[in-house]
Amino acid sequence: MSGSSFGTVFKVSTFGESHGPAIGCVIDGCPPNIDLSHSDIQFELDRRRPGQSSVTTPRKESDTVEILSGVFEGKTTGAPIGLLIRNADQRSKDYSNIKDVFRPGHADMTFQEKYGIRDYRGGGRSSGRETACRVAAGAIAKKVLLQDGISFVAHTVQIGAIVASTFDQNEIENNPVRCADSIAANQMVDYIERLASEGDSTGGAVSLLIRGLPVGLGDPVFDKFDALLSHALMSIGTIKGIEFGEGFGAITMKGSDHNDSFIVKDDVISTETNHAGGILGGITNGQDVVCRLAIKPPSSISKEQKTVTKAGGSVDVSVTGRHDPCICPRVIPVVESMAALTVLDRLLIQKTIIRP
Amino acid sequence: MSGSSFGTVFKVSTFGESHGPAIGCVIDGCPPNIDLSHSDIQFELDRRRPGQSSVTTPRKESDTVEILSGVFEGKTTGAPIGLLIRNADQRSKDYSNIKDVFRPGHADMTFQEKYGIRDYRGGGRSSGRETACRVAAGAIAKKVLLQDGISFVAHTVQIGAIVASTFDQNEIENNPVRCADSIAANQMVDYIERLASEGDSTGGAVSLLIRGLPVGLGDPVFDKFDALLSHALMSIGTIKGIEFGEGFGAITMKGSDHNDSFIVKDDVISTETNHAGGILGGITNGQDVVCRLAIKPPSSISKEQKTVTKAGGSVDVSVTGRHDPCICPRVIPVVESMAALTVLDRLLIQKTIIRP
Amino acid sequence: MSGSSFGTVFKVSTFGESHGPAIGCVIDGCPPNIDLSHSDIQFELDRRRPGQSSVTTPRKESDTVEILSGVFEGKTTGAPIGLLIRNADQRSKDYSNIKDVFRPGHADMTFQEKYGIRDYRGGGRSSGRETACRVAAGAIAKKVLLQDGISFVAHTVQIGAIVASTFDQNEIENNPVRCADSIAANQMVDYIERLASEGDSTGGAVSLLIRGLPVGLGDPVFDKFDALLSHALMSIGTIKGIEFGEGFGAITMKGSDHNDSFIVKDDVISTETNHAGGILGGITNGQDVVCRLAIKPPSSISKEQKTVTKAGGSVDVSVTGRHDPCICPRVIPVVESMAALTVLDRLLIQKTIIRP
Amino acid sequence: MSGSSFGTVFKVSTFGESHGPAIGCVIDGCPPNIDLSHSDIQFELDRRRPGQSSVTTPRKESDTVEILSGVFEGKTTGAPIGLLIRNADQRSKDYSNIKDVFRPGHADMTFQEKYGIRDYRGGGRSSGRETACRVAAGAIAKKVLLQDGISFVAHTVQIGAIVASTFDQNEIENNPVRCADSIAANQMVDYIERLASEGDSTGGAVSLLIRGLPVGLGDPVFDKFDALLSHALMSIGTIKGIEFGEGFGAITMKGSDHNDSFIVKDDVISTETNHAGGILGGITNGQDVVCRLAIKPPSSISKEQKTVTKAGGSVDVSVTGRHDPCICPRVIPVVESMAALTVLDRLLIQKTIIRP
Repeated sequence: MSGSSFGTVFKVSTFGESHGPAIGCVIDGCPPNIDLSHSDIQFELDRRRPGQSSVTTPRKESDTVEILSGVFEGKTTGAPIGLLIRNADQRSKDYSNIKDVFRPGHADMTFQEKYGIRDYRGGGRSSGRETACRVAAGAIAKKVLLQDGISFVAHTVQIGAIVASTFDQNEIENNPVRCADSIAANQMVDYIERLASEGDSTGGAVSLLIRGLPVGLGDPVFDKFDALLSHALMSIGTIKGIEFGEGFGAITMKGSDHNDSFIVKDDVISTETNHAGGILGGITNGQDVVCRLAIKPPSSISKEQKTVTKAGGSVDVSVTGRHDPCICPRVIPVVESMAALTVLDRLLIQKTIIRP
Repeated sequence: MSGSSFGTVFKVSTFGESHGPAIGCVIDGCPPNIDLSHSDIQFELDRRRPGQSSVTTPRKESDTVEILSGVFEGKTTGAPIGLLIRNADQRSKDYSNIKDVFRPGHADMTFQEKYGIRDYRGGGRSSGRETACRVAAGAIAKKVLLQDGISFVAHTVQIGAIVASTFDQNEIENNPVRCADSIAANQMVDYIERLASEGDSTGGAVSLLIRGLPVGLGDPVFDKFDALLSHALMSIGTIKGIEFGEGFGAITMKGSDHNDSFIVKDDVISTETNHAGGILGGITNGQDVVCRLAIKPPSSISKEQKTVTKAGGSVDVSVTGRHDPCICPRVIPVVESMAALTVLDRLLIQKTIIRP
Repeated sequence: MSGSSFGTVFKVSTFGESHGPAIGCVIDGCPPNIDLSHSDIQFELDRRRPGQSSVTTPRKESDTVEILSGVFEGKTTGAPIGLLIRNADQRSKDYSNIKDVFRPGHADMTFQEKYGIRDYRGGGRSSGRETACRVAAGAIAKKVLLQDGISFVAHTVQIGAIVASTFDQNEIENNPVRCADSIAANQMVDYIERLASEGDSTGGAVSLLIRGLPVGLGDPVFDKFDALLSHALMSIGTIKGIEFGEGFGAITMKGSDHNDSFIVKDDVISTETNHAGGILGGITNGQDVVCRLAIKPPSSISKEQKTVTKAGGSVDVSVTGRHDPCICPRVIPVVESMAALTVLDRLLIQKTIIRP
Repeated sequence: MSGSSFGTVFKVSTFGESHGPAIGCVIDGCPPNIDLSHSDIQFELDRRRPGQSSVTTPRKESDTVEILSGVFEGKTTGAPIGLLIRNADQRSKDYSNIKDVFRPGHADMTFQEKYGIRDYRGGGRSSGRETACRVAAGAIAKKVLLQDGISFVAHTVQIGAIVASTFDQNEIENNPVRCADSIAANQMVDYIERLASEGDSTGGAVSLLIRGLPVGLGDPVFDKFDALLSHALMSIGTIKGIEFGEGFGAITMKGSDHNDSFIVKDDVISTETNHAGGILGGITNGQDVVCRLAIKPPSSISKEQKTVTKAGGSVDVSVTGRHDPCICPRVIPVVESMAALTVLDRLLIQKTIIRP
């Protein structure tokens, strides 16, 4: 129960450390007879891969995935899918400098205290490297969901004080920050590069849009759709807040403003507005699910910081190496993947409700 | 898998509709040999009870709990604890007016579509009445955790545009909005009463503070402490957003500002600031866990709203009856309870990590 | 995690002690729109009820069930179903004589050591009384499964050395031992009555037949249909062994004898024989599932037995009171219920396998 | 939810087909700080490996395991342990002859019907080859449990009509059938070789002995220790029956014979006899847990058998290739492993019960 499993019917179990031999996962419960190729998964991994642009870490990892099981003659069989990604340069680095030092903002201290031991190389299990497995599993979930017309778009809406003000979906993959506003994107890149040169990092905000959801996903009381999605997304190490629809804006709203009036549109019950973000009583209502995520500034910075050693001594630390000055661009495929894992799991669970 | 269970080791399963014979729950996995009396539970239920002040619904429910099992001679035995709360006035009301009408902001439509049937009386299973069971179970969790010096304080920090600016914990239970700033509290009460008289409702914000947590709760990757707490709290129907520590404020922060420097204080590793909200890498770091919640304005308002019937016809609806114009005061014990359920579950799970 | 929950999609959580105020359960995940009446459940409870014949305990319990939630206008709604059974005579007995004595064959010692506390009245949570909740939940599962033509027949096939040699299903409910061979049944009754008069008890064997199962239930590797059914049935306190199809008879068989040849019958793939008991590779193959259960002699006997006290002193004990000299007749509805809970859960899970 | 995960706290997820690139597993929840080397796992895999004696299949698989994660500097870290075993000769075989034929006794038909697709090469996911992953995970569980003095011994007690009549534990690994009676072992080998030469196979019986268990493992009602162990062991494809202590022998016993009298021995509460097999009320009582398993004759035989094709045509099939004429010797490490996984999981869960 070390927390590395996600999902109930479509269940993912991941493993691997930043600088061990490999990372990977097992996906148990994938529907059979789905076309699945290596490139379906590799495509998404490439979106998350380090070294893809001027504003991401230059670490060299090809993140090449191998499918070990569960796929036969190009189709899923219903058996568990084993995926393997070898770490390319795991032996080359020297981490002796952080062996006994707790880096601020990192999990070094909490892992050491929790387990009484830790693999300190590159953060070990607490490294963001584990998110590659989420993306690999998410790629499969996305492929299954595409059959039902369900799609996911995450994009950067703010970095530092720079806020996107237009939305052109086609722009997202055209700039290194994955922002749907090309003008804001340029400013964001400039800002990130400036901070990087100062040995610092910046936070940002990412929006997620899920389209094509049927009415009825999510379960009352504890497994509301927004609760499950919050669990999924807040489990991404870098996310510090989540809001649905109007979110924190609802604090100052009146009921008469926040309630979405029901209407009939194309013979289907719809809502006039979408303040609720596509979820009513924890169940999807057929509108787009919309949420916004607060992304913290990466903790690894080369600026000197005050900290302590394992033995309790004071020390200054500068986290050198190749790090992301802003994680928004690379967290986007992870956000989409966690959403896809959540949606597919609930879509399958919804099938258990018999209608005689 | 209708979503009415919560927790892994300390597991709660709830049942009951707003206007059925009773609501209740089973708590499986409570540690044995804990002193537990009826009044431990009733005390918390009374904090959530309707009709407790001028700004809550005047619905009459005594919410008297009966302990059916799992307690023997005043102590828990380790066997499941069955709790029962009879609904007092469940037969007196006439709900024929909402039988075929989907109230805006409510789960009427989504329940109908999901299940093909719904108990429409007072919202049935989707009513906030189910939260009484969360509070009853949470009261037991709080009692167990008190042994370990862990405590929970939730309080209203904003209603509409009125923001609390001071924090005096003793004030919280002294005013009907449960605000730690008595001056702001008075303004909040005035604002709520004005909206109520207009047949409208208002949103607000609640903060939660968890004190006394040991280092090490929460599990890496998918079961991070903040992910689990988000799941727990976002499952409360009225909550639309959650943030930890700096939360959405981190968007505009630099890494050098957001990182909390480690220091040694009283021979224990601590942090100089608490921007992270008490959690590092998904694991509690011994600081207070701090989060803030966006509470939407209640959907039940007597102002006329546009909506549709089950058959798809347009209609105006005014939700009459006795409703809360602002749910912050009554959601506070629910927030504390969900946090307590989460913490206790993880505290027990942490015991499974052997140190030889 | 005290072990009182069963199932994944159709999930049952039970509570209650033998001599507490009540026993009951919550059923989470029942499909909606199923006709369900009080008498559907009461009928099965009456089959398990004490005092129904000369060979069962004369304890007086009407076992009247109350439906607290999840049913609206005679139909299930998909919301959790709360069931309550008040204990009738829980306060009348004096159990001070077994307060500090560990009865042989009972769980007194193991509960005391496991929890450090126990409700000793009538065995508390370890009493067979908890099986009433299994039967109540099982009655609902049976009702749902009947829609799909799936039915359950358990019957006594042996008591002591007396073995049933014919099978007439109509006989089962016609004699107090629930044996399908009326001649053997008479001998069984005589034998049980003789042992009862000697203050002793006897073991027996029960067979279970599940008819109408589709091909495909059960999941490969760890959740094979026979593994799940074994879990379910071996959790009934009195059962000490289980075998499927030829079972222990397979030890002396050759592969050429044990393999069931496939044939086509009425355009459906079937098998010529059913040595496997209806399961191949852990998945139902469309044949009847057949298993046989070893039932131990009840531990409560009035004959004097050697034992120890909590403090470790030697003492002789005679378990007086009203006990079953043979539990086969009353375990039969429990066996059917546990099978029904298992089958329905897997039938619902099988729906999650999409065929494009 | 394809059934490939086992355990709650110490959780194993396996993957892999008989003739795919690799098999493997992820172990989530292993306690940290346990010494673990490659050879700890390889030792047990070698006990299960094909080709180890004259009475096992001559298939060539070295079953070399690679540890991918979760172990750092020779110790477990609490992070998930990824294990990988490459299949050696997976591409060399021609399985076109069984592509469309359902082999009697195998899962070909049930997999095809359940999933609508199957990897037919060597049985794919339904092959006994998956048990290598159980043994790899079990080796780790055994290593952890050894710290607490808990050990597992499984041995062959019967093959065909030949019954072991003496027990010398040192003999078990000295003969190819893993029987503790060397004289019976010789007869068993002769019998198996004779059947193999006739193109046939034989069933057998295996006993399992678990020593050193503390009082208190297993949970009341549904998660009784015997129920969980039955789930674990009956999930091994070849097992058709299980019994604890006297097991089916209890059918003809009286309560006064079956009950184990409590005594005090070396200041500890013990029992005079062990008819119950070490479990009372579903909880271990400190005595050895003893159970006996019915092992069916392997389904793969070269003798011609009647069967049908996927299209429904009649055909005779002879399953050629290299198969085990009796699986008892190779199932023994699998039995021990499943028991170890079950025991460790419950030992960890038992830690969640607080004693103030």
